[in-house]
Amino acid sequence: MALIVQKYGGTSVGTVERIKNVAKKVERYRDQGHDVVVVVSAMSGETNRLIALANEIHDQPPARELDVLVTTGEQVTIALLSMALQKDGYDARSYTGAQVRILTDDAYGKARIQAIDADRIRKDLEKGRIVVVAGFQGVDEDGNITTLGRGGSDTTGVALAAALKADECQIYTDVDGVYTTDPRVVPNARRLEQITFEEMLEMASLGSKVLQIRSVEFAGKYNVPLRVLSTFEEGPGTLITVDQEETMEQPVISGIAFNRDEAKITVRGVPDMPGAAYKILGPVGEANIEVDMIVQNVSADGTTDFTFTVHKNELRKALDVLKNVAAELGAKEIQGDASIAKVSIVGVGMRSHAGVASKMFKLLANESINIQMISTSEIKISVVIDEKYLELAVRALHTGFELDRDAAAK
Amino acid sequence: MALIVQKYGGTSVGTVERIKNVAKKVERYRDQGHDVVVVVSAMSGETNRLIALANEIHDQPPARELDVLVTTGEQVTIALLSMALQKDGYDARSYTGAQVRILTDDAYGKARIQAIDADRIRKDLEKGRIVVVAGFQGVDEDGNITTLGRGGSDTTGVALAAALKADECQIYTDVDGVYTTDPRVVPNARRLEQITFEEMLEMASLGSKVLQIRSVEFAGKYNVPLRVLSTFEEGPGTLITVDQEETMEQPVISGIAFNRDEAKITVRGVPDMPGAAYKILGPVGEANIEVDMIVQNVSADGTTDFTFTVHKNELRKALDVLKNVAAELGAKEIQGDASIAKVSIVGVGMRSHAGVASKMFKLLANESINIQMISTSEIKISVVIDEKYLELAVRALHTGFELDRDAAAK
Repeated sequence: MALIVQKYGGTSVGTVERIKNVAKKVERYRDQGHDVVVVVSAMSGETNRLIALANEIHDQPPARELDVLVTTGEQVTIALLSMALQKDGYDARSYTGAQVRILTDDAYGKARIQAIDADRIRKDLEKGRIVVVAGFQGVDEDGNITTLGRGGSDTTGVALAAALKADECQIYTDVDGVYTTDPRVVPNARRLEQITFEEMLEMASLGSKVLQIRSVEFAGKYNVPLRVLSTFEEGPGTLITVDQEETMEQPVISGIAFNRDEAKITVRGVPDMPGAAYKILGPVGEANIEVDMIVQNVSADGTTDFTFTVHKNELRKALDVLKNVAAELGAKEIQGDASIAKVSIVGVGMRSHAGVASKMFKLLANESINIQMISTSEIKISVVIDEKYLELAVRALHTGFELDRDAAAK
Repeated sequence: MALIVQKYGGTSVGTVERIKNVAKKVERYRDQGHDVVVVVSAMSGETNRLIALANEIHDQPPARELDVLVTTGEQVTIALLSMALQKDGYDARSYTGAQVRILTDDAYGKARIQAIDADRIRKDLEKGRIVVVAGFQGVDEDGNITTLGRGGSDTTGVALAAALKADECQIYTDVDGVYTTDPRVVPNARRLEQITFEEMLEMASLGSKVLQIRSVEFAGKYNVPLRVLSTFEEGPGTLITVDQEETMEQPVISGIAFNRDEAKITVRGVPDMPGAAYKILGPVGEANIEVDMIVQNVSADGTTDFTFTVHKNELRKALDVLKNVAAELGAKEIQGDASIAKVSIVGVGMRSHAGVASKMFKLLANESINIQMISTSEIKISVVIDEKYLELAVRALHTGFELDRDAAAK
């Protein structure tokens, strides 16, 4: 007998038939004697339909009213799912974010949860009820309706699991777990049984977008075991946990993430003096351009080369911003390159294993792939390479670090 | 400077364009310096769409969850209308029933308002805001969402007007006021400038369904001046007020109501003894059949004829129920007749004018229309006649009591 929080996204509840299917999944856990709290998103397409209505009226819909509008999406789903559960003979109750009382700040459209009153839900669970909660929404101190921002239903699930001290928070999606890399690139990619929060964060932010980063951070912070599973297929999914003893037995590398969306900008011949980095990146930041990797090498002959990556869509804009800056700085040249890709290996095992970086570089060298930039963190190593070698690099690394399905079966 | 509560129904807010149009109407009042609180229904068709979704899941959707579901309809409208007002540069705020706090009992689907906390709205009005409130919905003591039953948005408007001590509650519909009778039957029917609550109640319950009866009762009880106007046309509409001095100057008769939906049942030769009426109507009531007119004449030769009307759809059922009863009572015969119509003249002037009934009977006799049943109250006289004479009767009465447009112009 455990207490389980399950979260189903918009695709999982996209039609009446799918809502009935979700009810069956919930009931199976209830039948096993578990207490179940279900968090649901709006039916897929509904949020966009509502936003389109708003846009017909106002090109920049006022944030407070937009939240009042879009929260009706989840409210519809909780009612329908509760009906489906009751139709099958289960006692169920729906709650909006305001009804639970998921208290947030008043930042409409991107509110942060401040407190959750779990009493009402606990009382329902004690009565044997299944509790169905609207994801993505809360209420501020003055009773105004707020939303946590798109995809915020994951956060609702994790926050409820933390407040209820649930044994597990299950996030149902359209994939059956977290993979060692994208199966479309490496057919031998393998579903991970387990991954740590930190690895998951690195994987997510690097492009393997299975979960909302915020919800993973939240789960890590409150130590809520998180499981990613498929709504449409049976299977154990992937469990995301804190870095426990047993994970030391795992392979050194958990997965390979990659990203084709970045472009590289190099400012050459920057006079090597204090404040140069700020002079370059300050105006870029002010122009609201997000910078990802930043690499600066030691100087030769009093100048240095400064390289960073931005989203491909913002390359043009970033180059424009830098034109004036370069002149001011006395830099020799500015180069932009959109035909790059970033590949990263991620794994907590890296911490206790030497030579992971050099193995990565050797595997790439074996394929004659030139490395343009390198950046490392405690549990990840990222390289920028020519975009055309991306698939080759990912496959070579996947095999080289023994992540292939066959390798695991050994 | 007055405080006005305006209520717009589903048709008035049925499209984004119409919502923008409603915003313009609201703004015109605001521009005149009035404080405005707007109550809106769900966009037309939306409530039915939601109920259809529920019915795909549950043939008898649980009442609590159905209320959670359908209240999203008005929540969408309040957000969109507030956006439209803000787009035009007006400060506006939307509130759900729960947010205002319209406290109701917990009778889901047909809840009754118990109290309204008007503080929040008053504070907004003081700040110069237009307040937009979701009609039809409330919240019980435990924070469960409730609805007032279909058409309950009128009740929300009147209740808010009472709580705020508004100067006027304006109900916008697709007709431009209350008419002396149905203009489809009498082309000369005239819009009434003013009518009393009592007359309105008699008119409404007799088939001139412009307003929900409950909201008229409510308005009468709390003395809220009610005005019926058209959303789509300009005009003063009809003001519904208490029976004041000046109404004594009005014509004797305010309007002619009629109803084609009833059928007549006659139990002949009922032994004239105590309890006979109960023996007949008791089982009918137990079968959940509503009875309207009831007429029993004095007895001749120790038996009497007992006649009453029910809805046409329930004639068959009522006759079935009575079969056994008649035998038990020793009644001679039971007759059902679906080809009848009821015509009523309504007017507070009746109280102080003698001879109104005889004038009505004379006008009908002039047209050779036979009267089958007569029933009277203080401000109305109803007769049942053969259905085929309905139009003729209504026109004759309309002209005879000088309700025609030309007559009024004299």
